[in-house]
Amino acid sequence: MSSYAYLGPAGTFTEAALNQLVKPGDTKLAFANTTAALDAVRSGAVVGALVPIENSVEGFVARTLDELVIGEPLVITAETTLPVEFALIAQPGVALSEISKIATHPHAEAQCRTFIAKHLPHAEILVSSSTAAAAEEIAQSKDRTRGAIAAKVAADHYGLEVLAEDIGDNSGAVTRFVLVTKIGKINERTGHDRTSLAIFIGADHAGALLEILNEFAVRGVNLTFIQSRPTGAELGSYHFLIDVEGHILDARIGDALMGLKRICEDVRFLGSYPRADKFTTEVSRGRSDKDFSEASTWLSSVRNGTLT
Amino acid sequence: MSSYAYLGPAGTFTEAALNQLVKPGDTKLAFANTTAALDAVRSGAVVGALVPIENSVEGFVARTLDELVIGEPLVITAETTLPVEFALIAQPGVALSEISKIATHPHAEAQCRTFIAKHLPHAEILVSSSTAAAAEEIAQSKDRTRGAIAAKVAADHYGLEVLAEDIGDNSGAVTRFVLVTKIGKINERTGHDRTSLAIFIGADHAGALLEILNEFAVRGVNLTFIQSRPTGAELGSYHFLIDVEGHILDARIGDALMGLKRICEDVRFLGSYPRADKFTTEVSRGRSDKDFSEASTWLSSVRNGTLT
Amino acid sequence: MSSYAYLGPAGTFTEAALNQLVKPGDTKLAFANTTAALDAVRSGAVVGALVPIENSVEGFVARTLDELVIGEPLVITAETTLPVEFALIAQPGVALSEISKIATHPHAEAQCRTFIAKHLPHAEILVSSSTAAAAEEIAQSKDRTRGAIAAKVAADHYGLEVLAEDIGDNSGAVTRFVLVTKIGKINERTGHDRTSLAIFIGADHAGALLEILNEFAVRGVNLTFIQSRPTGAELGSYHFLIDVEGHILDARIGDALMGLKRICEDVRFLGSYPRADKFTTEVSRGRSDKDFSEASTWLSSVRNGTLT
Amino acid sequence: MSSYAYLGPAGTFTEAALNQLVKPGDTKLAFANTTAALDAVRSGAVVGALVPIENSVEGFVARTLDELVIGEPLVITAETTLPVEFALIAQPGVALSEISKIATHPHAEAQCRTFIAKHLPHAEILVSSSTAAAAEEIAQSKDRTRGAIAAKVAADHYGLEVLAEDIGDNSGAVTRFVLVTKIGKINERTGHDRTSLAIFIGADHAGALLEILNEFAVRGVNLTFIQSRPTGAELGSYHFLIDVEGHILDARIGDALMGLKRICEDVRFLGSYPRADKFTTEVSRGRSDKDFSEASTWLSSVRNGTLT
Repeated sequence: MSSYAYLGPAGTFTEAALNQLVKPGDTKLAFANTTAALDAVRSGAVVGALVPIENSVEGFVARTLDELVIGEPLVITAETTLPVEFALIAQPGVALSEISKIATHPHAEAQCRTFIAKHLPHAEILVSSSTAAAAEEIAQSKDRTRGAIAAKVAADHYGLEVLAEDIGDNSGAVTRFVLVTKIGKINERTGHDRTSLAIFIGADHAGALLEILNEFAVRGVNLTFIQSRPTGAELGSYHFLIDVEGHILDARIGDALMGLKRICEDVRFLGSYPRADKFTTEVSRGRSDKDFSEASTWLSSVRNGTLT
Repeated sequence: MSSYAYLGPAGTFTEAALNQLVKPGDTKLAFANTTAALDAVRSGAVVGALVPIENSVEGFVARTLDELVIGEPLVITAETTLPVEFALIAQPGVALSEISKIATHPHAEAQCRTFIAKHLPHAEILVSSSTAAAAEEIAQSKDRTRGAIAAKVAADHYGLEVLAEDIGDNSGAVTRFVLVTKIGKINERTGHDRTSLAIFIGADHAGALLEILNEFAVRGVNLTFIQSRPTGAELGSYHFLIDVEGHILDARIGDALMGLKRICEDVRFLGSYPRADKFTTEVSRGRSDKDFSEASTWLSSVRNGTLT
Repeated sequence: MSSYAYLGPAGTFTEAALNQLVKPGDTKLAFANTTAALDAVRSGAVVGALVPIENSVEGFVARTLDELVIGEPLVITAETTLPVEFALIAQPGVALSEISKIATHPHAEAQCRTFIAKHLPHAEILVSSSTAAAAEEIAQSKDRTRGAIAAKVAADHYGLEVLAEDIGDNSGAVTRFVLVTKIGKINERTGHDRTSLAIFIGADHAGALLEILNEFAVRGVNLTFIQSRPTGAELGSYHFLIDVEGHILDARIGDALMGLKRICEDVRFLGSYPRADKFTTEVSRGRSDKDFSEASTWLSSVRNGTLT
Repeated sequence: MSSYAYLGPAGTFTEAALNQLVKPGDTKLAFANTTAALDAVRSGAVVGALVPIENSVEGFVARTLDELVIGEPLVITAETTLPVEFALIAQPGVALSEISKIATHPHAEAQCRTFIAKHLPHAEILVSSSTAAAAEEIAQSKDRTRGAIAAKVAADHYGLEVLAEDIGDNSGAVTRFVLVTKIGKINERTGHDRTSLAIFIGADHAGALLEILNEFAVRGVNLTFIQSRPTGAELGSYHFLIDVEGHILDARIGDALMGLKRICEDVRFLGSYPRADKFTTEVSRGRSDKDFSEASTWLSSVRNGTLT
């Protein structure tokens, strides 16, 4: 039985995502923000923290990565995704026609405009700090004229009912979450892994990014995510957050990391972990572990003058 | 006299930034979120909206750019920066030793930990939805045991007093804000311009990013920002948000844009505008407007067989 | 009726290649070396000169290109290829067993070693300045113990007989020849054109070649040949001779040439002409003339603020 | 005492270059062509062969490299350069005004046109197979009306006299020669080494060259020479001959070679040897042996989860 932190409050999409990873008997602890959740890992209060990292409607994707980049190093050991399925929820027994106010997070409101325009065009929009907070307000106020746009899980959590499901404009949207733990034993390779990195360039020199991408390209390593982030001290000083296909134990990934380490001010390994979508990594011509091993053997024989 | 929208509430860093751009007599209207502020531009309710775009402690940088990428096109016509100077503010006449609770946005709390640990180690931390909201709560509650970490401007706005200035761990941090307007006449060139772009790649094909960066590199165009963003419909489908040094009327920028337009699914121009830091763009060897003009003349003479 | 120069003497592969291009009634003039043949074009003595340019066993491929790069500019207007089919030729009526000496150019001897080792292992090898010269010596000396390794056309030319055909070790080898004329009207496009260029870099700066290749790569232009050549004045100063697929009237080729002109010390256009192998140029995604035209129209509308 | 082959005949620039490398008592053997000279190395008849490789007026630079690429592998172990200083030589006691015919190799004639036009405008030009052969003809014929344009060394060799020295148009030209031996112990590093390579690409795939150059670029390895060469079997199938700055024992060169070995059909090492010009190799940021060693140590600690 382990304890896990997550970006709360209870009833958000993040809690729903954590349910996909934990075992029966594990404890889930909601934290008010990503920083607090990760600090709980650092302090040992929990073994891991689940935080949103991509395309979230709730959270602070950039902040999650920023948190991983500063302070005591942590690593991502798992990821999971969740369809972003908004529901309109309200007090039990309330009909859609009774709703005159809709509370939700602004991002959620922005993604449900078609539904609102069609079914509740005259509803007043109330801003809340999270979709779960919007649900909680209904539960506490017992206000039967108020609806909340939130995850379905929030209805269960606060004893409310779902009036309409899957009301988002973009029905295929998903959020990606990552499980963050202390540094330790590297995950085993699965063949469908992702590796996350933070790469710091020293000076803001033109062409630095192209140099970095070339280090990946020559080893046949594909990027799935990139973001330049200010380092904080001054505008114009950057680091890059990058996800690539593959595992740090893959020869080509290790080789690319050494190349980056040589030319960059710093490289921080943020974890190698199985992709939630289980897409098998395609290893391009000449970039398998066997290719690296054979090339190394060949070089030795050339250097020894024993090539035949 | 013009009306401007900004990301509210009043008393945030964004309002302080807008004060740097508006003229006496102009109207400032606070909006609850970036979407609402930009929609006010689209509807004609305001002539422009100021929203944070980089390194903000308040807002949703990624969201700002996302908003510019969807819906009716808008363009950035100006930017301004503001030092992120946190202050501890409280009811008039309150001493630091009287403070037992600190309200603020989680990001602000994360950036002021050294001050808190040293001066108020036992204070209870209260989460608020924005730094201005934390100040407003003090103003409304008259609670003399509560402090708020917020922008200095919030003290003025809510009739409070500054107990301690510049309390952030990272005293050089700044936030960048952009002024967004409807598409129209392009800004004149200043020699220290920035151009913002959204670049959509069709398929998630390996090497797409390298191709995009090469289009800039061969024209000697430097990037100052890059971010891959999911397009929303499905994970693995991306667009890139990119800032470069230079102006769309520069020959090299125009040439790079045409190159991108040819190979990408779509390119959205998000504006050319003077950099707040007024750094003069260095034009590298062979990339001035004169170089482009001379090369064009030369090619014509070669094609005509009249080269001498 | 026109006069053409070629790299002589008569009876070489070059004459055989010229026969593929000239019309009945045209005059063919043999010149002792490439320089002399090209100078005959420059002086107007002939309308064109055919010289070997690739994989020749007779000639000086590098020198041909060097000649095109210095002095009064000329352009390539056609190319043709010829299988390198060596024959053993001798006086009429001579049997293979009578041959005790073999005269030929060293390169030809090097390419026929298997035949010699099998059929004439004890023959003395006599070096001649060209394969045709070897044949001419037999014709003049009437020496019936002597064979020449040369082009079959040499047998006809000097009244000799072919003892063995296609005796080269590498039966698929071909030589490429180019027809060089004065600068004038550009060839029409055929869809299977090649363009030859000389590109001069100013300083011997690291990465110059990569920059040059990137200019082609971003326009989707494929190289079929590259050679660095010393500029002559000092070691370490170079130019590049490059062949690409496509025609100077193609938008992507013109765009690449302008890019090179901007960053290089000089660019010399050496001709656009149909490939002998008639391989159709594949135009990659986004690099057709239509793509260039549409991107230009788009840029204008963005710059005018009239994009809809 | 060792025996060395060289590209003859005696009296050429190559013999003069070999004089710079051999010790007193060593034997110099002239061979009629590069193939024969290299085969003498392969057979063990000589310990090394000196052949011209760049900018020669006598020889077949491309052929030299081609010879290194086929057959039993050999390696370059030294290089030397020689100023290309043409002299007009004739029978002893002959005055310039007595010369009515000039014999020389066409390349030499092409490089001395200014001298000829000024001093011997009416002289008949006689083509010879080498500059030394031109001198030899004078020695044998005793023809006092004939001059030869050749290396000064040819005058000594054939008992002739120098009428005019340094008569070339381009007084700074030099030829580079390489000493070729059997594969064996690698040269020690000097800090000013060059490494020669032959790189075979499998299919004629677009972008192959850019891939190859990127392998060098990411390791900060500079090229000093490149040439695409047809592989012989068919047009459109190529290999590349490339010289780079550095030594195969340098970590960055070894790493680049392994990268090439992985993606190319084959890589042939042609030798690491001191540059004749003794230019010290500049090792760019992050590419020293120490940088490679540190990066390897770092990667191990990351993979072990022991990074602190």
